[in-house]
Amino acid sequence: MASDSHPRGFLFPVDGLLEHWQGHRRVTRRMIQAFPDDQLFRFSIGGMRPFSDLALEMMSMAAAGIQGVATGKWRMVEGLDHHSKGAKPATREDLLARWDEVTRQIDTLWPQIPPQRFAEVDKAFGQWEGPIYGLLLYWIDNEIHHRGQGYVYLRSLGIEPPAFYERS
Amino acid sequence: MASDSHPRGFLFPVDGLLEHWQGHRRVTRRMIQAFPDDQLFRFSIGGMRPFSDLALEMMSMAAAGIQGVATGKWRMVEGLDHHSKGAKPATREDLLARWDEVTRQIDTLWPQIPPQRFAEVDKAFGQWEGPIYGLLLYWIDNEIHHRGQGYVYLRSLGIEPPAFYERS
Repeated sequence: MASDSHPRGFLFPVDGLLEHWQGHRRVTRRMIQAFPDDQLFRFSIGGMRPFSDLALEMMSMAAAGIQGVATGKWRMVEGLDHHSKGAKPATREDLLARWDEVTRQIDTLWPQIPPQRFAEVDKAFGQWEGPIYGLLLYWIDNEIHHRGQGYVYLRSLGIEPPAFYERS
Repeated sequence: MASDSHPRGFLFPVDGLLEHWQGHRRVTRRMIQAFPDDQLFRFSIGGMRPFSDLALEMMSMAAAGIQGVATGKWRMVEGLDHHSKGAKPATREDLLARWDEVTRQIDTLWPQIPPQRFAEVDKAFGQWEGPIYGLLLYWIDNEIHHRGQGYVYLRSLGIEPPAFYERS
């Protein structure tokens, strides 16, 4: 309707975006719990990565991503975080402990981010340019995408996956 | 920072949200094209639905959803749309033709939606209550989720799926 230079838009509450992200992360956490011990790090279809590796990718993206959003400094994190010294988690418990560490990291940094930061254009990891909300949606979408693979793994193992729509 | 009753938020451009949705729908369209003729309507892992059925669900949600967003009238569409008379598409060409019909429907209705509508709370199909942007994200997430399943189907068939990050 307006022909000025401001884009037509709506107010997206930053708390709603955090809840959207963490809600999806809660579903993925339940996926990590749903795999049998011996299959979480091993089961594969069509040469794809086991779910543990997919979960690690999601965690690395989330951990490095929230740092970049909050500080403007984009640095991929080797072996997920500074404490890990490059070692990959070898058990479900280790994987879940790191998952929860990233959850706390997101919850801690989020309130420190000024709302207008989410509409700023930045270049994530020196490569992916776009508004911050677009980068966040990309990381969330990537998690949904890989988690969807995990649903097939579980079904194929005869296990009922957690409900997609249950985010609490 | 502010303690007033307005939520902290940022301006989400409505054109960006449309592009986000249609970008994902373009990836899914390439998935429909990537399946071999005889597997699109049949291939399954773990008792899950064939990709044709998943694509139909995405289309039905998108078609009924955009109508609800634009008009406030929420009505699930039997067999996808009024022209279909309940018949499910039986060939890839039919599936793609309907997919493109929904694409045009979204593109046509979108500019008619006032920006503030996206922040309104509504009850989709008399069941799912939330802000419009949240409903839209849910439909998009559902598409990503099921499409992720399709990636496993294709890999399992020895076929390289279209790139997840390529949205144009």
